[in-house]
Amino acid sequence: MSPFQSLLWTGSQLRLLDQRSLPQETQYRYYDTAAGVAQAIQDMVVRGAPAIGVAAAFGLVLTSQQSAMTDSADLRAQLAIAAETLKAARPTAVNLAWAVDRMLAAIANPDLEAAAIHATLLAAAQQLYDEDVAVNRQIGLNAQALIPQQANVIHHCNTGALATVDYGTALGIIRIAHEQGKQIHAYLDETRPRLQGANLSAFELQAYGVPHTVIVDGASGFLMRQQQIDCCLVGCDRVTANGDVANKIGTYNLALAAKAHGVPFYVACPISTIDRSLATGAEIEIEERDGREITEIRGQAIAPAGTKTWNPAFDITPAELVTAIITERGILYPPYGQALEQVLINPG
Amino acid sequence: MSPFQSLLWTGSQLRLLDQRSLPQETQYRYYDTAAGVAQAIQDMVVRGAPAIGVAAAFGLVLTSQQSAMTDSADLRAQLAIAAETLKAARPTAVNLAWAVDRMLAAIANPDLEAAAIHATLLAAAQQLYDEDVAVNRQIGLNAQALIPQQANVIHHCNTGALATVDYGTALGIIRIAHEQGKQIHAYLDETRPRLQGANLSAFELQAYGVPHTVIVDGASGFLMRQQQIDCCLVGCDRVTANGDVANKIGTYNLALAAKAHGVPFYVACPISTIDRSLATGAEIEIEERDGREITEIRGQAIAPAGTKTWNPAFDITPAELVTAIITERGILYPPYGQALEQVLINPG
Repeated sequence: MSPFQSLLWTGSQLRLLDQRSLPQETQYRYYDTAAGVAQAIQDMVVRGAPAIGVAAAFGLVLTSQQSAMTDSADLRAQLAIAAETLKAARPTAVNLAWAVDRMLAAIANPDLEAAAIHATLLAAAQQLYDEDVAVNRQIGLNAQALIPQQANVIHHCNTGALATVDYGTALGIIRIAHEQGKQIHAYLDETRPRLQGANLSAFELQAYGVPHTVIVDGASGFLMRQQQIDCCLVGCDRVTANGDVANKIGTYNLALAAKAHGVPFYVACPISTIDRSLATGAEIEIEERDGREITEIRGQAIAPAGTKTWNPAFDITPAELVTAIITERGILYPPYGQALEQVLINPG
Repeated sequence: MSPFQSLLWTGSQLRLLDQRSLPQETQYRYYDTAAGVAQAIQDMVVRGAPAIGVAAAFGLVLTSQQSAMTDSADLRAQLAIAAETLKAARPTAVNLAWAVDRMLAAIANPDLEAAAIHATLLAAAQQLYDEDVAVNRQIGLNAQALIPQQANVIHHCNTGALATVDYGTALGIIRIAHEQGKQIHAYLDETRPRLQGANLSAFELQAYGVPHTVIVDGASGFLMRQQQIDCCLVGCDRVTANGDVANKIGTYNLALAAKAHGVPFYVACPISTIDRSLATGAEIEIEERDGREITEIRGQAIAPAGTKTWNPAFDITPAELVTAIITERGILYPPYGQALEQVLINPG
């Protein structure tokens, strides 16, 4: 396990490590209600596509635990409201809706009594939690075929233990390479506006002892000109049927730079991030967040008062810029339409 | 004139508008010595290739003014030391060395007495100052042929009145388009690490009443995917004989995104920025600055203590990504080797 835990079920509450105050402060927050968890997801106390999915699952557990309803129909009505609230917290990462839907599917049997609904939800959430660790570890192991013994990589945002239950996706690959004795050095895009690279990924890699260097997002192309970069590694919030990828804003510019330099661009994600209901990335709803994420840093203004901003939290990287998609079921290569269909049909 | 002045000769001192505290505070600093001016350039109290050239010119005026030497040979020796100090303040922008060398050339006549040296330097610095305004205005006028009546443009860093004596290069183009009644909207890269876009360019455009929107540097490619962008406009710190361009870090990633979207990428600079003594951008010395520019914002840590960084202040955009170079002598198109040679031979 990591030296920190993004999410923990205490037995009666969901404990979240508040990622907004890292790395300066390690502050835990405790949640009793689905509405509280939804707010924590919206405010990015917890973030990262896999982590918010698991957090939402425990949000439903909290609803069933807190409910005074002994009638199962009333409880189901409450859960339906909570499910909508949780799904609406953030629109782009499909893992959120996926986890909530999986929880609801677990209690599909209409004969379940209220107590059984609660027990089933708790078991389902714990299964999601455990699965996420196993899935991430498997992604990290599968990816090693692509990571040489000596590697310089560029990583965007935070995709580590903090973005998941443990290990992480792209950052998990870096961590496992290091654990396997590879000489891996990670260049971390600081990842404006929220600086998850400088705040969170640097914090994690420092804890694991993995050599790393923080750069501004605009420096990635010049870095590729100046020295050998073996690959870019990023996570992902949604993959559409054609292999287009939604991920943290700045991913697309990094992918364009990688393409220009012939650097492989790898996307790491669990199967749950694949959304074949959307044909292309153009159909993905991209969350726009408060402009103060750009104009203020830690409460200090860095732009004139009243400055307008455009602050999409994610961007779309078209499939043709993605060298491979690394999942727990193996590494997928273009053409992605076919590869994504097969990996979902055949659990490998 | 602008509502603010980056540099002003008071008659006995050089007054600089401290750009490190903008937009929150308008603070002027006064300099009596070349060493003080060199430090101000190094610390980026004054920045922007044209502005630091003019500041350095007045640095030499201060040396001659302060000198107790009445012997012209002694004064020349002092000036030579000051010239080296000023040139060494920052390595990448050629305008700095260019301005210092032009000042020294003005006093090349070995018969000049100390008093005449001082008078000549003062006149030469004032000429540089006045020329810079005229040159920038002409760049802005020349560029209008490329700017449609309705235009969405992306701008990087700050290249306005604050980066020059007045008007500016790329930002001057935007300002003049607005003054001419064009419907121009500028998307401003915030420009990490020093945030000159959010701090300075937004401040200037607000003062001029030009509509603008600040984005994080990583969002430029996605912006081009989402809406019509007519061109990118950037300044420049050095152009080599083949048309490679050194400019603020992040310029190269922006140019790659522009190329991918077929968006024209225009570089605006005075002729003094052209350095045909270097064959390609690979020969340009790129300044690396203190990593705290990345890990701290306004004194607050945003990364774990001890985090390593790579912080080049500039990058190189290869000539093949540059659609045109806009100078006071006209607009240059590829092949740049020939165009740059001709524009220097023939003053137009």
